[in-house]
Parts: sequence; C-alpha cells; structure tokens
Amino acid sequence: MEDPLAWELAKRQESISIAEFFEKNRQILGFDSQPRSLITSVKEAVDNALDACEEAGILPDILIFVEQSGRDTITLIVEDNGPGIVRRQIPCVFAKLLYGSRFHAVKQSRGQQGIGISAAVLYSQITSGRPVRIISKIGKDHPAHYFELIINTKTNEPEILKDEEIEWDRLHGTRVELEMEASYVRGRRQSVYEYLRETAIVNPHARITLVEPDGNEILFERASEEMPVAAREVLPHPHGIELGTLMKMLRYTERERLAPFLRYSFSKIGLHTAGEICKAAGIDPKTDPHTLGVDDAKRLIKAFKRVKIMAPSTDSLSPIGEELIYKGLRKEHTADYITTITRTPSVHSGHPFVVEAGIAYGGSLRKDGPAKILRFANRVPLLYQQGACAITHTIERIRWRQYGIDQPPGSLPTGPIVILVHIASTHTPFTSESKEAIADVPEIMSEIDLAIKELARRVSAYLSKEKTLNLRREKEVIIKRILPQLATKTAQILELPTPDINPVIAKIMGNVLVKREIHEDGEVHRVIMEVENNTERTQEFTLHEIHEHPVYNPSPAPKTTPIGSEYNHQWRITLKPGEKRAILYDLQAMPDELKKLPPPIVEGVGKELLTGAEAIDRGVGDGG
Amino acid sequence: MEDPLAWELAKRQESISIAEFFEKNRQILGFDSQPRSLITSVKEAVDNALDACEEAGILPDILIFVEQSGRDTITLIVEDNGPGIVRRQIPCVFAKLLYGSRFHAVKQSRGQQGIGISAAVLYSQITSGRPVRIISKIGKDHPAHYFELIINTKTNEPEILKDEEIEWDRLHGTRVELEMEASYVRGRRQSVYEYLRETAIVNPHARITLVEPDGNEILFERASEEMPVAAREVLPHPHGIELGTLMKMLRYTERERLAPFLRYSFSKIGLHTAGEICKAAGIDPKTDPHTLGVDDAKRLIKAFKRVKIMAPSTDSLSPIGEELIYKGLRKEHTADYITTITRTPSVHSGHPFVVEAGIAYGGSLRKDGPAKILRFANRVPLLYQQGACAITHTIERIRWRQYGIDQPPGSLPTGPIVILVHIASTHTPFTSESKEAIADVPEIMSEIDLAIKELARRVSAYLSKEKTLNLRREKEVIIKRILPQLATKTAQILELPTPDINPVIAKIMGNVLVKREIHEDGEVHRVIMEVENNTERTQEFTLHEIHEHPVYNPSPAPKTTPIGSEYNHQWRITLKPGEKRAILYDLQAMPDELKKLPPPIVEGVGKELLTGAEAIDRGVGDGG
Repeated sequence: MEDPLAWELAKRQESISIAEFFEKNRQILGFDSQPRSLITSVKEAVDNALDACEEAGILPDILIFVEQSGRDTITLIVEDNGPGIVRRQIPCVFAKLLYGSRFHAVKQSRGQQGIGISAAVLYSQITSGRPVRIISKIGKDHPAHYFELIINTKTNEPEILKDEEIEWDRLHGTRVELEMEASYVRGRRQSVYEYLRETAIVNPHARITLVEPDGNEILFERASEEMPVAAREVLPHPHGIELGTLMKMLRYTERERLAPFLRYSFSKIGLHTAGEICKAAGIDPKTDPHTLGVDDAKRLIKAFKRVKIMAPSTDSLSPIGEELIYKGLRKEHTADYITTITRTPSVHSGHPFVVEAGIAYGGSLRKDGPAKILRFANRVPLLYQQGACAITHTIERIRWRQYGIDQPPGSLPTGPIVILVHIASTHTPFTSESKEAIADVPEIMSEIDLAIKELARRVSAYLSKEKTLNLRREKEVIIKRILPQLATKTAQILELPTPDINPVIAKIMGNVLVKREIHEDGEVHRVIMEVENNTERTQEFTLHEIHEHPVYNPSPAPKTTPIGSEYNHQWRITLKPGEKRAILYDLQAMPDELKKLPPPIVEGVGKELLTGAEAIDRGVGDGG
Repeated sequence: MEDPLAWELAKRQESISIAEFFEKNRQILGFDSQPRSLITSVKEAVDNALDACEEAGILPDILIFVEQSGRDTITLIVEDNGPGIVRRQIPCVFAKLLYGSRFHAVKQSRGQQGIGISAAVLYSQITSGRPVRIISKIGKDHPAHYFELIINTKTNEPEILKDEEIEWDRLHGTRVELEMEASYVRGRRQSVYEYLRETAIVNPHARITLVEPDGNEILFERASEEMPVAAREVLPHPHGIELGTLMKMLRYTERERLAPFLRYSFSKIGLHTAGEICKAAGIDPKTDPHTLGVDDAKRLIKAFKRVKIMAPSTDSLSPIGEELIYKGLRKEHTADYITTITRTPSVHSGHPFVVEAGIAYGGSLRKDGPAKILRFANRVPLLYQQGACAITHTIERIRWRQYGIDQPPGSLPTGPIVILVHIASTHTPFTSESKEAIADVPEIMSEIDLAIKELARRVSAYLSKEKTLNLRREKEVIIKRILPQLATKTAQILELPTPDINPVIAKIMGNVLVKREIHEDGEVHRVIMEVENNTERTQEFTLHEIHEHPVYNPSPAPKTTPIGSEYNHQWRITLKPGEKRAILYDLQAMPDELKKLPPPIVEGVGKELLTGAEAIDRGVGDGG
C-alpha cells in the first residue's frame, strides 16, 4: 500500500447524469420487454393527457394510434384535447428527466414523478434512434408548435432538432409521436387494450379511442359528462411527517413565530391545536421557527402524535367510489355476490390517502387457481409486478380460511374470487419509477388490510347464509321446475298462452315478487313493474333498473344516477305484508336491445326472499 | 380557452433534483419500513466495502456495529480495511447521488448504480436530522480524514460540516457512521444477521463481524484465504447491443474506419469477423464511423446477429461456482439430494452474464408450503421483492408436475425443495434502485429457465430411482435393523465387543462398503478407511472426506481442495467386483471434534449400492 491504490481508484470516480443512468437501467422505468415497453409508453402519455385535462377542467378526448412501422418497431401516436403546453416548456417536458409540475403538489394526480413521458422519449431514441415529434397548441388564437427533440443523455438536457409553427385543426391539445422497438400484443391482461379498457372504467368522464396496428378502431365511449370532483391542492398533514421534511419547512418558512408557522404550514392545525402542540412540545409559541434545531423538531413530531388532530380532508383526493367499483366488477364478472368499500382517509408521511376495495365471489368466476387481483393507484390500473405490490402482500398475509375461503400457506386465496383495490393518494409510494407496484408502507398496508377484512367478513356471512338456505332453495328449485311444466301443459290443453307463474311461486315461497312487463310499441315501449310483498313482514327496499336508457314519463319518478355508460334508476319502496305496487315508465330502444335488458335489481331483500329480480347486497356505506 | 390555461399550468413546471426525488420516493431505494431501512443501509455499506477490497486485492475484514441510540433510532457503523478514499472525493462518494466508479465499467461488481451509500446517507439525514460521519485513510504514511456531511437535496451536492485530520489506528480503510430511524429484527430471513450470513457463504474470502444492539458479537470467519478470481473489465459484446448505444459509440469513437472501430470497440470481434460484419451489413470497412446514420447502425446490428460471433469470455465475471453453491446448500439444509449447475455465459444488451443454480430436495426440508427460493446477484443475497423478480417468475412458469413436483397453478412449486439462483453479470438489470429484484429480461429468464429445468430433470430422475428402489430399501432396512440386534445379543452372550456389522450388510446387499476406523492417539489420530466392492460390476468412484482438518502422511495422497472453511480430500478409486482397498491418513483434532466428523462421501455410486458412506450426485460439470 505504499503508493495508495486509492489514487488509482479515484481516477474512475465520476458523476452520472440521470439520463445516462436510466439509459442503462431502462428496465427500472418499465421498459424491460417489447410488449411492456409499448404499454408503458402508452400509459405515460395517457396519464399525462388525463392529468392535464382534469387540471384544465376539460372532458378528455384521447386518441391512441399504434402503427407497425417495422418488423419489431412500432410508431405510437397519442393525441389529446388538453390545455396544451407553452412553447418554451415543450423541450423540458418531453426531453428532460425529472421535470414536471406535480412533484411538489400535495394533491392526487397520476404523474407525480416528473419522469414518465421523457422516459418513453429516452427509450424511443435508444431503440429507434429517432427523435420524438410533438405538436402542441394552447388555444384558438394561438399557433400550433411542432418540435423534434432528443435527450442529450450526457447532460439530461433537451436537444432541439426542429422548432416550427404549423397548422393544426385542433383548438388546443397535444400530440406526441414516438418510434420504438416494441410489440403489440392482444388477448391478455398485460396489453394496451386491457390497460385502456380498465382506465376507461375508472375514468368514466374520458373518451378514449384506440387504433390497432391492423387499422381496427376501438372506442371506449365517455360514460359520463361530469368531470370527477377535482382534487384540490392542500397542505401536508402533520401525521407521520418526517423529521427531515419538518426541518426543511422550519428552515424555509417566512413565518417568524412557531404557532402561526404550524397553522399555515399544515392542514388541520387551527389556532387552538397549534397552541396545544407548542405546549405538548414544551416550546414557546412565539419562538422563531428558524432557530429550532433537530431536537426541537423531534419534540414537535412527538407532539403531533400526542395532540388530537383531525383526520385529513379528502379534498386533495378523488376516490373512484363504491358505486363505480361495484359497477366495474359487475360489468366484468358475473358473480353471485359483490361487495365494495371506501375507507375513510388516512395518512402516510404527511400524505393523505384513501383505500377502496371490492370483492366479487362465485358465479362464473374460475373456481380453481389463485384469486384474481385488480390493482389501481390514482385511477391508473397497475398491470405489472403484482408480486411486488403491498396490495398483493397484504392479501397474502390475511388468513382467508377463517372467512371460509381456501388459501395455500402464504399465498393468495384460491377459488372463484376477484379482489379489487384502489389507492387514491397525494403521493403514491411506488417501488420503482415504472409505477407498477406500491411499496410495503405499514400505514397503507394496514388500511388495505382493514378494507379487505371487512369485505371478507361480508363474503363469509354471505357464504354461511347460503349454506343455511340450501334447503329452502331446493324446495324453490323443485317448485320452479314443476309448476311451469304444469302451467305449460294446462295451457296447451286449454289452448291458452302459458301464464307467468312467478307470482304463484312468490306466493308459495312467501317471497317478494318483482314482475316486469314490457309492452313493445314501435320505438317507445311501456314498462310496467309490479312489486308484491308475500312475506310475513314489512319489506323496505330499493328497486334498481340499471341499463343504457333514460326513462320517460315515469310514475313514480325514480332517482337516477349515471354509472359508467348506463343509468341507475332507483325507486325506494316500502310494502306491508300482502301489499302490492306498480311502477311504470317508457323507454326508447330497439327490439333487440329490449331482449338484452338486464333483470331488475332489488337492494335490501335477501335473494332467498326474492322472485323475478336479482338481489344485491353491496354493503354500500358501511365502510370506514 | 381565451386566456390559455397552459400559461397558468406552465408556472408550476420546474425541474426536480435527483436528491429531492429520492427524498420523496425513498421507498424506491429500499427504505420503506424500519427493519428494511437498516438492512438496506448495511447492504449498501458492505457491498461497497467488498467491492473496494476486491478491486484492491485485499482480503476484506468488515465490522458492522448496530447500536440502539433511541426508542426507534439506530446508529449504524460499518468499518472496512479497504484501500480508503482520497480526501477530495469523500464528499461526493457519500453525499451526492449518481456518483461512482463502477457505472461505466463492463465488469461484475456489486455496486453498479452510483446511488447506494449516498441513499443511506439521504435516509439517515431525513429521519435523524444528523450528518453522516466518515473516517477514511488510504495508506500507512497518510493521515486519516474525518468528515461530517449532509446532502443538499435542492442541488444534490454535498455540504461539508466538518473536515479534519485525525488519528486512526488502521493502516487503511473506511468507516461510515449513520444515525437513522430503523429497527433491528432477529429470527427471520429478512434481517441484518441473515443478510450477512448469506453474504459470508458466497464470499468465503471475507471476514465479517456483526455487533448486535445488545452487545452480542457474531463472527462470520473467513473461510478461504484466496481472493476470488478478480473480474476484468472488458469491452461490450456485440450481441443484443442497443441501437442507441451503438450510435453513441459511432459518434464518439477516435477510429476513422469502420473495421478497426468494430475490432477495438467490441469483445470477440477480430480482423476476420470485422470484415464479415461489414460485408453482411453492406458497408465498406473503410467508411468513417462518424459518417454512419441510424439506418447503417440498424444494418450493423442485423449483421451482428447474422455473422457468427464467439460467446463472451467470463473474464469480466466471477461466478460462485458449483462447488460453493453445493456447499452453501449442504451447510444450510439437510436434504436427501442436492444438485447444482453453472451455465455457460450468455449476453443481454451487450452485457455478459452467467446463471448458476442449485436445488436441494427432501430430507428435513419443510414438506408443506411453497419452495424456498434463495436469490443472489453478483454475490449479493436478495432478501426483498421476491415476487417481483425474474428468478421467481421463471420458476413459477416452469411446469413442475412433469418433474414429479407439486405446483398450484401459476405459483411456486410446493414440497421439500430449496431453489438457489445466482446471476453474475457486468450489468444486472434490477427492477428498482433498491436492487432487490431482477427485471424480466427475456435473455436472462431463458438462461434461468434452462438451468433450473436441467436441475429439475436430475431431481425427477432421482425421485423415480427412489421409487423403483423402495423394495430394495425395505430389505436393507430390515437387515440393518435385525443383524445389529443379533450381533449385540451374541456379543453380550460371548462377552465380546459388538462387531461392526456394515461389512456383512454390504455383502448381503451386494453393496460397496466404506468402513472408516479412527485410532485415537493423543492429538494425532490414525484414520483407516476400507473400501470394498461387493457388487457384480466394476465400480469407479470418488471418495470424499470433507472436514476442517488437513491430512498428514496420507497413502495414497488425496487431491485436496478447500471448500469454505473446510477441506475436500478426494480419492479416485476403481474396484473390480470383490476387490478391496485401504486408505490411510493422520489427522489432528480434539476428541470431541472427532465425534463431529461427518461421514465419508462417495460420488459415483448410487446410495442404494452404498453402505457406510453418504452418496452424492452433484452432476457437477454437466451444466451448459
């Protein structure tokens, strides 16, 4: 060691640009295989479009155009009707990693890292050698700007190859064109189609059009004209705030006294609470925050835990909602039982978040193999790295057998079960920049755990009820099989039309009867629904008609709420034993549409007590 | 849209420093929970120490000191005897993200990202508010430098709080001290202890000392005085090289002609091959590389695929080796059957890599639950994110039933099986900066697939052999149970010492007999091994004595190779039917050590034909 080796080694030390880093580690950004690389690119572009439109209060209209431009190269074009991007910022937005508008905002959004789209640009230039082409226009009276850009990976700065004004027919919006080594796959969950389909389900306000390489065009039509409740930017919540973060806030605040600093730097801290905290921390409220050191900061954090502080408001979040989750599950799977929940908000490291979940069980779901897991973060479906995700890990750790559901030790439960989890958060802690898996953050895992256990309880209640009711079922089955035959026979003999025998069954079974008759009449049809309570007790329930059609001259008038592309018309009904009621409305539909009309749905009456309608038990509202 | 919203949105656009990014997304670096944060910090520090020592050709001697410095704060000290770091570079090495010496080197090393240790520093300052303390010394006649540093997260530049010369008793080395929010856990695989234990197994040249919070000291003693074959830095291999990378190389080369450019920029391209490639690409070998465009580059890449190019050399890699993997598995698990393989090198995006694997089956391994997976990358154990790893994914996709091993659809195989996989590569494509899971890179997955399927074939061969031999076993069991009883009885009656019954059993069973007698004699003992072939055919086999002791005056002399802390003394023996041979040696050991002496091991004779020794079938060498 006379001539120190350290000198030799030192020569090799150098700093690495973030672009070089990701050029070499693009798999971290989600570009590890050809199919995934395309999906990731689509995802980044679409997420940006949706975020931009939401910020601008514009109903998104997004076109995705996938073209096979070579044996294994694909040209991807994503065009939106968003607010557009001002000229001077286009280069950095698309050709500089770690550049963005949402990184510092405490507010739910899809892009929170400032990496996404420029990552796709980086991948495209690595694999195709071609620049990214961008058109953006910010308003009617403004020119459209056309750019060709590459990222200089040595410096992580944009290199502008072209910068022109051009004609563009849109009022405002942005268009990105990328060529890349990639492949377009069909028919599995990990596909562009599936990603867009699931995105459409949880973003019913968006219209998304996909043009596949073979020219086939798929439209995911906007299912609602309402913008989702926009997430407001809020102050960080004191719970779980980190020492380092707090010290930074203390150093850079303009306030000169601790109490006001607390009030105006955090959400949910008012005049009173601020005082409480100072007292609990044993620091004079008048102290200048800039003079506080590590140990004071530590005392403040302890005080945050001791003093009672209100839970964070959900203003900064925009959950999907139990209705829509229920709808999403129902649309995809014909299950016997579906239940959903939206938890009350909670906090991790000062970031509010809400966990929502749904379980579908039985029906035509695959009985063998592990449960199907559907993961969403801030309305973005997560298709990859299921095994790395806190959602999966939490589900695996739950003891499913105690809810009557099979489970190989330490793995996912097995059987006909689909579990959906959505995490809405102002900062989603992903395990990597590819944003496909949520890290094992204890606060988040415990919320997922509580949500799913609540649903599992409902499933097991449902399952045990099923058991005890089997006898009753068998009886009903027999009656249902025999009576109709009798009816038909008799009808044939008497040369009369076969009567609807549901009412009879309902009587014999002592059920609530729902009888829907549709009198076809050209294009406008008269719908008559009869509900009758044959049970021994008063029944209070909601009757749902869920289909694509608005109702005309209804009596009584229903409460109507849009779900996805359909309407949910609801009638609240109370019937004493033996009581009857009729509900009427007109609807406009093609004859073949009439055939596809789903059966009426009754909420609040067990399916075993129901004839002529589907029963649901969503447990809506008993979350939290 | 008259006053474009884009202007409003534009105000919020800003660039984000990599340090800010990771300050907010520290879970990406592996700091998501208190126990994991500590493990990650230890890992980063130890990896650096091992890399530095290997580069300097020093046998590593590493001390890890974990102290509970607060209710949930821990002080971590890691000290090594490495080459040290020159003064001016200490700040950047520890307090600047994306700074390092190994990022651009095409060579196997643990740290390849230039993020690791500064990530731990970042986490420590976020959670404890304290600076990192460093001591480093580069040689006997040089002063030791003491630094206190923090990372300025706004700029990702080091801030130097202290910079002093101090006395330090070491000749050379580095000492890092970090305080952080963390917790020390015991008794599970995801623990500091377990990480170090596994590290010691695959790095037998390292001495590692762990001092636990309660003061308990654990020494993982160096098991070999030999440095592992040092990995040499090499040129990238043409296979799978990326367009972007090639274009960069073309742009920045000093060569003025294509042919020499190819020869001196890539490994395994000689004069002849270079010509071939130019011809295949239809480009004049004399062309100036700087004049070539995207399409020429694309043609060159096609040519790389068409022209025959030698596989990459392993100089740049340092695999663990079948012996050591076997040893590691054998040490940890008492299995009935262990088999290991080291594949020939392969390439992903120009980076050579080697896959090694081992399977242990049966014995005392847990019979229920999924297989235990042990993952290693460049001699670093991977403890987290198993579900995200290409190793796991590949194992899950293999159809294990066809090898006679149970498997729930789409999951890990179940039963008494341990699967170890090591990937040695000049560039490991991790799914995130936490370096816990390998991305699903097709080339790597197919190598893992081939390695494991080969091992699975051997296991299933072993299992079917087991079955067909059950009858023979039963017979042997009975004989083995009864004869000794007879012998003892008779001996008692005749008042003689109980004879060794193995020779008789061997005769009756027609087995190969190995009989080891140790004549104790003070401290030096005479070992006599008799081998006898009672089978009907000539037997060729290797007799192994694997224990901690060297052998003295052996006859015949064995071939001795060190495995970990032990020696493997091997005798190659051929015996005609009925033939006998004696092997003698002296060994020095305490009487109680003698008792612990493992039985002799025979390689090349099925266990069913063996009496008095363990059988092994490692299939060593039939990899590739």
